[in-house]
Amino acid sequence: MKFKEQCGLFGVSSHPRAAELTFLGLYALQHRGQEGAGIVSSDGVDIYQKKALGLVSDVFNRDDFLRLKGEIAIGHNRYSTTGSAVLPNVQPLLAELKNQPIAVAHNGNLVNASKLRQELINRGSIFQTSMDSEVILHLMAHSSCTEITSMFIDALRKLQGAFSVVLLSKDKILAAKDPWGFRPLCTGKSGRSFFVASETCALDIVGASLLKEIEPGELAILEGSSIDYVRWSGDDSERALCIFEYIYFSRPDSVLYGHCVHEARKEMGRQLAKEHPVEGDVVISVPDSSNAAALGYAEFSGIPPGLGFIRNHYIGRTFIDPSQTVRDLQARIKYNPVKEVLTGKRVVVVDDSIVRGTTSKMLVKLLRDAGAREVHLRIGSGPIVEGCYYGIDTPDSGELIAARLTISELAKYLNADSVEYLSIEGMVRSVPADESQYCLACFNGNYPVKPREKLTKHSFENSRILDI
Amino acid sequence: MKFKEQCGLFGVSSHPRAAELTFLGLYALQHRGQEGAGIVSSDGVDIYQKKALGLVSDVFNRDDFLRLKGEIAIGHNRYSTTGSAVLPNVQPLLAELKNQPIAVAHNGNLVNASKLRQELINRGSIFQTSMDSEVILHLMAHSSCTEITSMFIDALRKLQGAFSVVLLSKDKILAAKDPWGFRPLCTGKSGRSFFVASETCALDIVGASLLKEIEPGELAILEGSSIDYVRWSGDDSERALCIFEYIYFSRPDSVLYGHCVHEARKEMGRQLAKEHPVEGDVVISVPDSSNAAALGYAEFSGIPPGLGFIRNHYIGRTFIDPSQTVRDLQARIKYNPVKEVLTGKRVVVVDDSIVRGTTSKMLVKLLRDAGAREVHLRIGSGPIVEGCYYGIDTPDSGELIAARLTISELAKYLNADSVEYLSIEGMVRSVPADESQYCLACFNGNYPVKPREKLTKHSFENSRILDI
Amino acid sequence: MKFKEQCGLFGVSSHPRAAELTFLGLYALQHRGQEGAGIVSSDGVDIYQKKALGLVSDVFNRDDFLRLKGEIAIGHNRYSTTGSAVLPNVQPLLAELKNQPIAVAHNGNLVNASKLRQELINRGSIFQTSMDSEVILHLMAHSSCTEITSMFIDALRKLQGAFSVVLLSKDKILAAKDPWGFRPLCTGKSGRSFFVASETCALDIVGASLLKEIEPGELAILEGSSIDYVRWSGDDSERALCIFEYIYFSRPDSVLYGHCVHEARKEMGRQLAKEHPVEGDVVISVPDSSNAAALGYAEFSGIPPGLGFIRNHYIGRTFIDPSQTVRDLQARIKYNPVKEVLTGKRVVVVDDSIVRGTTSKMLVKLLRDAGAREVHLRIGSGPIVEGCYYGIDTPDSGELIAARLTISELAKYLNADSVEYLSIEGMVRSVPADESQYCLACFNGNYPVKPREKLTKHSFENSRILDI
Amino acid sequence: MKFKEQCGLFGVSSHPRAAELTFLGLYALQHRGQEGAGIVSSDGVDIYQKKALGLVSDVFNRDDFLRLKGEIAIGHNRYSTTGSAVLPNVQPLLAELKNQPIAVAHNGNLVNASKLRQELINRGSIFQTSMDSEVILHLMAHSSCTEITSMFIDALRKLQGAFSVVLLSKDKILAAKDPWGFRPLCTGKSGRSFFVASETCALDIVGASLLKEIEPGELAILEGSSIDYVRWSGDDSERALCIFEYIYFSRPDSVLYGHCVHEARKEMGRQLAKEHPVEGDVVISVPDSSNAAALGYAEFSGIPPGLGFIRNHYIGRTFIDPSQTVRDLQARIKYNPVKEVLTGKRVVVVDDSIVRGTTSKMLVKLLRDAGAREVHLRIGSGPIVEGCYYGIDTPDSGELIAARLTISELAKYLNADSVEYLSIEGMVRSVPADESQYCLACFNGNYPVKPREKLTKHSFENSRILDI
Repeated sequence: MKFKEQCGLFGVSSHPRAAELTFLGLYALQHRGQEGAGIVSSDGVDIYQKKALGLVSDVFNRDDFLRLKGEIAIGHNRYSTTGSAVLPNVQPLLAELKNQPIAVAHNGNLVNASKLRQELINRGSIFQTSMDSEVILHLMAHSSCTEITSMFIDALRKLQGAFSVVLLSKDKILAAKDPWGFRPLCTGKSGRSFFVASETCALDIVGASLLKEIEPGELAILEGSSIDYVRWSGDDSERALCIFEYIYFSRPDSVLYGHCVHEARKEMGRQLAKEHPVEGDVVISVPDSSNAAALGYAEFSGIPPGLGFIRNHYIGRTFIDPSQTVRDLQARIKYNPVKEVLTGKRVVVVDDSIVRGTTSKMLVKLLRDAGAREVHLRIGSGPIVEGCYYGIDTPDSGELIAARLTISELAKYLNADSVEYLSIEGMVRSVPADESQYCLACFNGNYPVKPREKLTKHSFENSRILDI
Repeated sequence: MKFKEQCGLFGVSSHPRAAELTFLGLYALQHRGQEGAGIVSSDGVDIYQKKALGLVSDVFNRDDFLRLKGEIAIGHNRYSTTGSAVLPNVQPLLAELKNQPIAVAHNGNLVNASKLRQELINRGSIFQTSMDSEVILHLMAHSSCTEITSMFIDALRKLQGAFSVVLLSKDKILAAKDPWGFRPLCTGKSGRSFFVASETCALDIVGASLLKEIEPGELAILEGSSIDYVRWSGDDSERALCIFEYIYFSRPDSVLYGHCVHEARKEMGRQLAKEHPVEGDVVISVPDSSNAAALGYAEFSGIPPGLGFIRNHYIGRTFIDPSQTVRDLQARIKYNPVKEVLTGKRVVVVDDSIVRGTTSKMLVKLLRDAGAREVHLRIGSGPIVEGCYYGIDTPDSGELIAARLTISELAKYLNADSVEYLSIEGMVRSVPADESQYCLACFNGNYPVKPREKLTKHSFENSRILDI
Repeated sequence: MKFKEQCGLFGVSSHPRAAELTFLGLYALQHRGQEGAGIVSSDGVDIYQKKALGLVSDVFNRDDFLRLKGEIAIGHNRYSTTGSAVLPNVQPLLAELKNQPIAVAHNGNLVNASKLRQELINRGSIFQTSMDSEVILHLMAHSSCTEITSMFIDALRKLQGAFSVVLLSKDKILAAKDPWGFRPLCTGKSGRSFFVASETCALDIVGASLLKEIEPGELAILEGSSIDYVRWSGDDSERALCIFEYIYFSRPDSVLYGHCVHEARKEMGRQLAKEHPVEGDVVISVPDSSNAAALGYAEFSGIPPGLGFIRNHYIGRTFIDPSQTVRDLQARIKYNPVKEVLTGKRVVVVDDSIVRGTTSKMLVKLLRDAGAREVHLRIGSGPIVEGCYYGIDTPDSGELIAARLTISELAKYLNADSVEYLSIEGMVRSVPADESQYCLACFNGNYPVKPREKLTKHSFENSRILDI
Repeated sequence: MKFKEQCGLFGVSSHPRAAELTFLGLYALQHRGQEGAGIVSSDGVDIYQKKALGLVSDVFNRDDFLRLKGEIAIGHNRYSTTGSAVLPNVQPLLAELKNQPIAVAHNGNLVNASKLRQELINRGSIFQTSMDSEVILHLMAHSSCTEITSMFIDALRKLQGAFSVVLLSKDKILAAKDPWGFRPLCTGKSGRSFFVASETCALDIVGASLLKEIEPGELAILEGSSIDYVRWSGDDSERALCIFEYIYFSRPDSVLYGHCVHEARKEMGRQLAKEHPVEGDVVISVPDSSNAAALGYAEFSGIPPGLGFIRNHYIGRTFIDPSQTVRDLQARIKYNPVKEVLTGKRVVVVDDSIVRGTTSKMLVKLLRDAGAREVHLRIGSGPIVEGCYYGIDTPDSGELIAARLTISELAKYLNADSVEYLSIEGMVRSVPADESQYCLACFNGNYPVKPREKLTKHSFENSRILDI
């Protein structure tokens, strides 16, 4: 099974250029997945699709928008996991169920997929992909209902885990969130057209205004020139938005549950400066992910901000498997330090998180080589000590450096003069609502949904079928 | 639904270079289908596949044979139907059934596919292609058996129509023929390796010797270094080999039920000369399909054979949809007459069959333009007056020229001095066994299996899903 | 340097679909070269070109004909030499000379190319290809004339060897033959359009009628709706048409100097039967190149013709470098014997020529394996004992089997019961005019033009420039 | 003719993985040109090349580095001009001169190219491209010298304009700068290997240290394990480094003539704040080009810096020619404003330069739409009032907005509350040395080299040759 991590979802109804707007939406959501992209549209009679590996703007060209006919369309950006990216695993998944075509796009991770899959296989279902998302289609095919919305709800009720799902039929779009609301999904409006999108930045690019977040356990129905919201899950007591959407995943200009992501990050920087002050000459970020947090740290601490690293944005596939020659030089491929900003300085470098510690170690070395007198690492989130079952591709806890080393051991390992994390309280203080509304499992091990199974990328690939 | 007409099947077990031999076999069977080709192999653990549109020698390259690992492999050549050739419809079809991968390749046409398909959809099956062959996989997935051979037999027993089928699982190959034996399928042997092939010319190319034809209602099991034959159908009283295998489909160097195809065709030519003699100066063929019949005609009649047409073998995809300029010139794109052979001569031109009459009309015109004094058309098979339900892509009887015109009307329409067909008796006299062993439905309307449905290419494409 | 052997040339003036007709012409001439193809057209203002490796019908598609604008066009088919086929060596060669664009396509081989090339380099010319044809462009660029026709004649006068050349400028087409006329080139007409073509079969396909052969030392000028012929070479006493055009290169339906190629070949077969009769049960050809000669042999000898080999026309690039497994099977990849025609028979197999003897040896083995009682090899041309300097890619004489073995040694080496060649007299008797009109150098060593240099494929590639 | 604007050059000698290091160097210089890239290497015997359109990391893959053999290599990044990007115009240009292969890569623009080209054509040279760079090769081919370095110097002395040129022969690399030094080019060292590069960031990525800038009128010779510098131009009195290298073209982490580009830009921001203070709540940049200047402005002014725009780095070719639907939305495709940072604020937005004003107008509108109370535009360089003849693709002065409008008219046109430019003095004060060392022609019309001709992209394409 492929983990489908922070994929991007987009959908539009009632627009004469539905596919082109979907392209724009996916383009704005490119940061959520760069492995591949797909768009499926419908003109009420036929269904049109194009899917391919690669960036949104490489996958689609102008002529495609004329061929992807119809006034409704949905699209999906797939997260890039290393190596085993294959076309059949690009979404939306399209199939004919009970003689009508259905396309499904999914962001999240199911924790009962293996069990459901085996039950379906025992009943005679033939799976075509190794994605957990495909169980949704088979559950719908086995539903006793015949109307799309009912079939979809039937299927949703059997799923456990994290799932924001968008579905297209010949004449409508359905968009649903799981009862905990792990992953974002919102609705928007422009003229007579309605939209669903993983983030508000995708509404901005098409000139749409935010209507509302889809609530946990809620389903939006976009049909004709109207939108309706219904609850499909009775349970609405608990919520578990993944706090990493504020820390890392979402684009800074997106607004999530009424709160600007950039401002949340900047506040995390301020909280970090408050919790872990240090004497320094310059505060630098690791561009672009910690720009906001670094700015917040600089502002609160009064230490001037500086541009310590230049990031090369042109990284391409040649670098996936570097030869030994290049591996030795790899540190500088993505980041080059600006010596004049660093030489002789006490440098406070703010990063958003540490997973294995490999990148942090490399960055500290680059700073030292560039002449930094002191290197103080400040992390805008807490120590990651547990794995994620809901869609983030974190390694086993054995590889999580914060689970293995104390703060002082870590500083030593990274060759930093000091390393400090933001507290869980500090994180929560930077975001709307209280701790009960968030999934903090990777920080504290409190899993909102009991994980039935730890899926790996190849869980459903016992005997592999290899396209050579 | 795509008609899968005279596709080519090949399989090999217990050979270290199974995929490469399969490639050779498909190459020898290229005349049975030029739309696309696929090979699936197994090393006992994993399954490897490559499928693409195009000729066998364009689809595969040397490196593929290293990547298509394992000692067993099957392959399929797909017939070129006009226009809508798409990759998902290239075989073998591969799917995971009850957690084990199965590949299936099919030659023939089912007459109860629509009914079976709808039943399966009602039970929750999701179809991925518009090919009738896919029902075989779903029937197997719904079987109550768990062992591959039993699952396969379970499925076969539900099928009606023409089907020669080859199946590959992780560790064996199964090859079966329908109870009437419409389409050819034989087995061969070389060293410790066993083979299945649509025709013996594919055994020749890999240096294998013919073991035996698979009998109607029989199943061959190739596993390890052995082969077994079992009957899966109780009914073995009736046979219905498509006589067009002798007339047109099979390669002249193939041996079918003990009889050389070339010799059968030459005999048809002799019978034709006997039934329909004519005064002439030269006997010519329409190369290469009627070369043998023309030779037989010349031999029996004593009229010297000549080369009246040069055929261009380099026909490519540019000609699929010619512009008007080219359409006017189209006659000469495939055939160019050799004037010196024809000018002032009474020409007897022998062809294998007439369907719509378009090509015949064009050929007669070319001969007249080249100066032929008389043109006598002799056809090495009978008048085609009925459609085929078992896999030949004949048009409706309304478009069959022999169903609409008398012999003399036909001669006038074609602008020939005379046109004569071989009689059904003449045809049967040229091939082994008697009339009861052949399907002659297109000549006499006696359909061995009651046709439930006349499938068209798009029978299963109500609402189209279009890959743009 | 690449040898450009039996390339195909085509040109058309004054036709609204000039590029499409050129495509058809090249398609009809595909047998002269399968490595690559190119078309260059002009609308009087701009020049349009498309060139690529591959067959004509794979290189061009329908849309290309709309983009290759203009009423004049020329095209070229390039012969396939093994391995080093690269795009820059595909013709027509296109360059801007004295501010005007010129395209040149060449069939033949220059014998003073190295000397000319070095002189041009010493004067500052920069060569872009390793083809001898490029010297024509540089000679023109250094001409003191400014008008295209004069520049072209200037260049032609410096060339030695075999060359049929077609040139396109913005507003006209020039077509010239060397003073000996080694390679064919003819002109045709249809409506207000004029044509040049290597063979008449290319005129047939576009519905044009033959005007006349371009004479040795003559130049045809196609401009507007007219054609003019001028002599560019004073010397017109000697002629040296390559007799292999009748034996092998040209298509049987082409007419060369008033004589049908098919009939010439058939006559060679008759002469061969007369010179070298043998007792036999069946006469077979090696399809398709010796079909006509075999027919002539059968006719004269009274031995019935038969189809002994089935040739597979789908040979593709996968077979260029077969693995060991396939190499053992290679004999049957191109030809499969029809056992029923051969078993127990005394077989007379007629082939057109023998070069190294490798193929002949393999064919005799196939016949013996298929049960032939006797195998008598009859060759429709004389023994090749010398190399060619004018464009045929024959090996050094050390590799020419007829130069090394006597007839009886050869029969033994090939494992044939007998081998006989047609005499030079027999060949000449089969074609128009007398021996003085032909180049027979490969049979008798009488070279019409003193060869200055034996060019090899890489003569001009001292230090290689490799596109990786 | 193509303008070759801010191309990137790289070369390395005496390194076993020369091609891979060249790839890295080009990758670090990707900002200088994104249209296409090429690498040419030599192993002392043969020359290897790969060139293609696209980004460096898309053009090359790991296997290429094994095929691009040898210990010396040079590479080139080509600037993306709209539309007419074609492969033959990708550099390095490779040709065989006097029997030895030479590759040339060029950054800059010649002002006497047309004249030189016509002279060469009159002497019989055949040009293959429409790039001014090709004249260098032909000048070398016509040199009376035979040694590469002498031939190169011969050619350089005939050139006028801006040119940094790198040349590779079989066994050495030559790198030269024009007598005014318009474009950067420096040398570096690591172990026994030597390097040339447009900027020091390319030395950083391969772990090399800076040796020195190549001086105007100087030539570096990299051969074996040594480097030599010789003067090829007698004239060394005047210098004219393009000041836009500091303002925009070079990467901020590069060091140019001893000065860090980032620091120069930050200082321009400080000077700008000093010259043109304004009351504001937040200082924002247009990421990433004016990040440094904005930081400098914020620092000097005391107004806090903020992230006002999020830039999408995934821009691809789909956006080259947007449809009308998208054109209306185009403003947000590249930049999305962060409302929370802007609403109700007096925003000071610092940009690096204004050419036509189109982007500035669009950015001001985005800020206003996001709720900015006031928008003050501050430009970190002077008003561009004249075109460039030395390689920058500026429009005619008629399209330069600063040449048409006064400051107040400009503010009105852009709908900004105020617009101010940095003075020429302020710019010069931010960079090393004095005004006499820089080309400031686009600001003050003082052209160091009298422009003979204003080349346009198609200067050398009178009659176009179109690859369809």
